[in-house]
Amino acid sequence: MKPVKVGLLGLGTVGTGVVRIVEGHREDLIGQVGSPIEIARIAVRQLDKPRAVAIESAKLTDDPWEVVRDPEIDVVVEVMGGVEPTKAYILEALKLGKHVVTANKDLMALCGSEILSTAREHGCDVMYEASVAGGIPIIRTLIEGFSSDRIDRIMGIVNGTTNYILTKMSQEGASYEEVLKEAQQLGYAEADPTSDVEGLDAARKMTILATIGFRMNVELSDVEVQGISKVTKEDIACAKKLGYELKLIGIADRQDDRISVSVQPTMVKRDHPLASVSGVFNAVFVRGEAVGETMFYGAGAGELPTATSVVADLVAVAKNLKLGVNGKQSAAVFKEKILKSEAEVAYKNFLLLRVQDRAGVLAQITQVFAEHEVSLESLLQQPTASDQTADLVIITHDASRAAMRRVLQAFESLDVIKQIKSVYRVEG
Amino acid sequence: MKPVKVGLLGLGTVGTGVVRIVEGHREDLIGQVGSPIEIARIAVRQLDKPRAVAIESAKLTDDPWEVVRDPEIDVVVEVMGGVEPTKAYILEALKLGKHVVTANKDLMALCGSEILSTAREHGCDVMYEASVAGGIPIIRTLIEGFSSDRIDRIMGIVNGTTNYILTKMSQEGASYEEVLKEAQQLGYAEADPTSDVEGLDAARKMTILATIGFRMNVELSDVEVQGISKVTKEDIACAKKLGYELKLIGIADRQDDRISVSVQPTMVKRDHPLASVSGVFNAVFVRGEAVGETMFYGAGAGELPTATSVVADLVAVAKNLKLGVNGKQSAAVFKEKILKSEAEVAYKNFLLLRVQDRAGVLAQITQVFAEHEVSLESLLQQPTASDQTADLVIITHDASRAAMRRVLQAFESLDVIKQIKSVYRVEG
Repeated sequence: MKPVKVGLLGLGTVGTGVVRIVEGHREDLIGQVGSPIEIARIAVRQLDKPRAVAIESAKLTDDPWEVVRDPEIDVVVEVMGGVEPTKAYILEALKLGKHVVTANKDLMALCGSEILSTAREHGCDVMYEASVAGGIPIIRTLIEGFSSDRIDRIMGIVNGTTNYILTKMSQEGASYEEVLKEAQQLGYAEADPTSDVEGLDAARKMTILATIGFRMNVELSDVEVQGISKVTKEDIACAKKLGYELKLIGIADRQDDRISVSVQPTMVKRDHPLASVSGVFNAVFVRGEAVGETMFYGAGAGELPTATSVVADLVAVAKNLKLGVNGKQSAAVFKEKILKSEAEVAYKNFLLLRVQDRAGVLAQITQVFAEHEVSLESLLQQPTASDQTADLVIITHDASRAAMRRVLQAFESLDVIKQIKSVYRVEG
Repeated sequence: MKPVKVGLLGLGTVGTGVVRIVEGHREDLIGQVGSPIEIARIAVRQLDKPRAVAIESAKLTDDPWEVVRDPEIDVVVEVMGGVEPTKAYILEALKLGKHVVTANKDLMALCGSEILSTAREHGCDVMYEASVAGGIPIIRTLIEGFSSDRIDRIMGIVNGTTNYILTKMSQEGASYEEVLKEAQQLGYAEADPTSDVEGLDAARKMTILATIGFRMNVELSDVEVQGISKVTKEDIACAKKLGYELKLIGIADRQDDRISVSVQPTMVKRDHPLASVSGVFNAVFVRGEAVGETMFYGAGAGELPTATSVVADLVAVAKNLKLGVNGKQSAAVFKEKILKSEAEVAYKNFLLLRVQDRAGVLAQITQVFAEHEVSLESLLQQPTASDQTADLVIITHDASRAAMRRVLQAFESLDVIKQIKSVYRVEG
């Protein structure tokens, strides 16, 4: 039983989890693969750092090239993160005929197409289940489970930090700033939270999911992104009153062969399966022409959930190795990508407007919607503390992004509108 | 591009869906498999029946053996259902080196072990994703996604009929009989609903899930089963008042290497992900040591969801065929099965008792619990229409099945108890 030899790049949280699982489940893994999986070499930043797992020091190196070029290594598992120089290590490994398992969403979102084509060229596997939604086997499900279906929508809560913040704001009526500070103290948000709260992390994951789900080469720049840093207590209270939860939702849509991908704060109707996904949990809702509505729910991050996905990929690669069939089972990207125009992407919108409280105001505002052919589903006027102003809560029927942009432009020059307080997408 | 030739056994709802998908997604399937999938022969009960899909009459036969023994056929897709004579067709197909895709939960639950070992012997694939939870790719997920994890719990709403009935009873305060009749009219329940409402269908699916999840040869007779036909409006109202939903839940549990599997009406705390799964939807909640809590949600039945799973299996088999690696990737069953004893299976219980309303009654009842070392989490006395009786709503802490049996036996001979109205498992 010749072992499958693994070189690990990175021994942080996830790397440590991978070592723990591979060592703790040795017999199980032999049962599945037919031979042992051995973590033979590990590249770390600092050789002499104290570690949470016992590792022979001979296995450690501080030079990732040593791992990548070690002729003994069959599979490189990359859990060091970052795009450069990580990409160079992965490309080199593939060129040397080594298979790659990675948890690196940034790399796969930005350079996925180059990495996958290099892998194909050299007959290697690249697997990246852990790059999206930690412990949820969503990539495997999209590639294999729905192989015969035509997926027309993927909606995901794929960033735990923002979902934690929005959940807390909803449950406790707290402000964005308060909850962000708390999340940073608990380690759920980073010191510089920009990538999470501005939706960039979610956008990278949606790029990966849309590429696989639609079998088109979706790029990060194709994704419309809006973060949650401007969400107020009032928005959330208003959403709740109307029977919605405000969530940061990634939506990839396809009609015929035209697609759109976005990440934006979205009001989700309370009976939609995504509305009850709370805290740091992730969930991905997939709608297929045949299969209908499905949802996959689980931990989006964390040492062991993410490491479980990495090791599941490692097992798949190891089985392929034993079978001699690597490099043949990745998702086929074979469709031309056509992005919907701004005029084709349509959805319901929620608007919260501060307006003057006098006769004729409603007429002027509804006139603007009518001019741009946006029809309204509901309109609610509520008093404010001042008797000169009122707040208008409006939900539109499906309206194109282009039409909504024109409506908002017209509102800028309408002096009965004191402030456009919020505009959100509405779903469900 | 030599096509992969498929023989279909059965052309009912699911069979028709398979034909529709394979024909409607021809290009997609070629993109994935590398050659076309062709449904070459179909065994039907009646040759001249009008059909929802157009089929050349030359492909039809009323003799399943003709399909099974046709040397041209690579893969037999069985969607005719039933255990006999279906089993004989499948075993024969495997012995002739044909791969098998089946949606037949009865067959897999009762004869899975024989079928899988015959497949191994002849180097054939047997895939059966559609046998559990229709469109949810749960089998694939358990086998591959969690390959490196140790699953310690699988909880499933795996029968749409009973979930529809319980959801309606909860939403409308209707009785079991009323809702069952309605479900039968809508086609959600069969004329003879026994297999669904008595939990047998769910037990078969839990047998399959537990076998895969625990990698032990779990048999149908290992499953403790209780159905929903005795559930009353009052039980559901009581559950709701306490913050629970009453659901028919299959639970497979493992501690160390001792397992238990059951299907029973269970009170599920409202914030548990399974509590909000309503109507005919199915969901499977899986807890892994590493991955934590995950849930998979989707349509449990229906032509297209089930057919999607069948075709996903067909694609996997076809890819294996192209790669020449069939018969090597099924779930390894390699652990000895040890069932927990009645004394080891412990959970919270809900009891609804009609008792005499006089001094000393509570003392007698709580004394019985104390004698059998069952401690109580909560106890609520509520008045009834009569002034001589009261209802007691009790929730216990975790108590073994053995201890609870002794408590209930003691209650039989306690004359302050007029009636043991309901006893349910409590989760979450």
